[in-house]
Amino acid sequence: MEIVRRVHAMREIVREARGRRLKIGFVPTMGCLHEGHLSLVRKVKELADVVVVSIFVNPAQFGPGEDFDRYPRNLTRDADLCVAEGVDYVFTPEADELYPPGPKTYVEVTGLSDRLEGKSRPGHFRGVTTVVLKLFEVVQPDFAAFGQKDAQQAVIVRRMVTDLLLDLEVRVLPTVRDEHGIALSSRNRFLSTEQAVAARAIPRALEAARERLADGRVEAAGIISVAREILEAEELLRIDYLELVDRETLWPVTTVDAPAILLLAVECGETRLLDNAFLDPS
Amino acid sequence: MEIVRRVHAMREIVREARGRRLKIGFVPTMGCLHEGHLSLVRKVKELADVVVVSIFVNPAQFGPGEDFDRYPRNLTRDADLCVAEGVDYVFTPEADELYPPGPKTYVEVTGLSDRLEGKSRPGHFRGVTTVVLKLFEVVQPDFAAFGQKDAQQAVIVRRMVTDLLLDLEVRVLPTVRDEHGIALSSRNRFLSTEQAVAARAIPRALEAARERLADGRVEAAGIISVAREILEAEELLRIDYLELVDRETLWPVTTVDAPAILLLAVECGETRLLDNAFLDPS
Repeated sequence: MEIVRRVHAMREIVREARGRRLKIGFVPTMGCLHEGHLSLVRKVKELADVVVVSIFVNPAQFGPGEDFDRYPRNLTRDADLCVAEGVDYVFTPEADELYPPGPKTYVEVTGLSDRLEGKSRPGHFRGVTTVVLKLFEVVQPDFAAFGQKDAQQAVIVRRMVTDLLLDLEVRVLPTVRDEHGIALSSRNRFLSTEQAVAARAIPRALEAARERLADGRVEAAGIISVAREILEAEELLRIDYLELVDRETLWPVTTVDAPAILLLAVECGETRLLDNAFLDPS
Repeated sequence: MEIVRRVHAMREIVREARGRRLKIGFVPTMGCLHEGHLSLVRKVKELADVVVVSIFVNPAQFGPGEDFDRYPRNLTRDADLCVAEGVDYVFTPEADELYPPGPKTYVEVTGLSDRLEGKSRPGHFRGVTTVVLKLFEVVQPDFAAFGQKDAQQAVIVRRMVTDLLLDLEVRVLPTVRDEHGIALSSRNRFLSTEQAVAARAIPRALEAARERLADGRVEAAGIISVAREILEAEELLRIDYLELVDRETLWPVTTVDAPAILLLAVECGETRLLDNAFLDPS
């Protein structure tokens, strides 16, 4: 495995691979890899001949006062994990190469980026789509994988790829959970033992919502409210949003008569936790 | 020569060419081709193995009340001209393929897009950069050519290419002028004989600015004012803007002690005319 730090070096590798008609699979990450990321790597490895993982903590997707500085970084461990998974290249560029000095160019998916997570974190998704497009331009993947845990991000990236006519296929893969059902996230390490126990209410809340729908209770208000009660019972959790929305438009639904998704963000101390559940009426 | 109307068909052609390691040259246009466009085609033909010209009157770069509907269109004549120049493919997609239904994704170069032409035509450059990126994604050119006549557009597209790390080279080529010095533009056909005579004041104004600088008079105010006087002497012209700016930042300069550019837009009846002159102190 090779660690690639410069854009021009990555481009050379991509040109080489393209010249040999190899398929390129790509997993963009902010590092501090966990089983969620590794499940993306494994899928991409099935699909492609060359696997590239990028590790870049993207300043443009953090707002002022957010956790950019304390976001966990551990390249040595990440590289070891990538070697073990058979990754071919870890692309870890410097910020000044991805953001050259001068006027900034932004890529923004309107209509999807300013609600839910985007409402709580203004500019976040503009930062995500801009850096993902830049990484796509350098890596030129045939396949790129994203986690379902960041459901809104997945919808937005998919839309960007469709709308900008990018010639690549996005795969969104199931959330990987720990033994208590908590969605894996690089930020989970910030939870105290007590907070980590409180966070188990999140998968319980999602499960209760699913069960209610399975009972044929399709009204969104009722589904949201069983989930809310479970979350609110935990003093260490504060709900930022909890919404039942259409899976593509992300607009709230009032009844689950088509595939929908229950999306939530909760604050647990200083740590922000995201999760979601597909709700399928069929 | 082949006329290609669908994105998937264009992609196939590009894949084929890439597989044979051919270099692709690209001239994006809104059609109604004139010698200015053809000079771009000729340059790109020198550089590349395959030449693609796109013809697409892009609704996203026209504001409400602007001339989208009456913008001249003549595909038959354009195709004949392309055949004569040895163009390989004319890509002329439908708007609903370049703008799929659903939430819109925009590409915007901040800091350069809201001044000068962008101030008079809000959203214009966002429309330009968005469609140019989409076309680049489909055509995947090694070289793309733009005319110096639309100087601000050229600066903005260059910046987008650098900032989004697009793997292609932008060439900006000199303005082609008629025998009276008027910059060729698809919109010139809208000028009456009288208006066309009045428009000759534009190259005269640019020349007077150049001469003043050649005399060692480097203050921007004086240079602008000689140009302004010549334009204002023509009753049929109305100056929208006339600014002397840095060639990269497009910020106004007060003295021409580094390469600068005099940019102008005038209204002549219903017709908007753009022109510019490089001003070089050396």
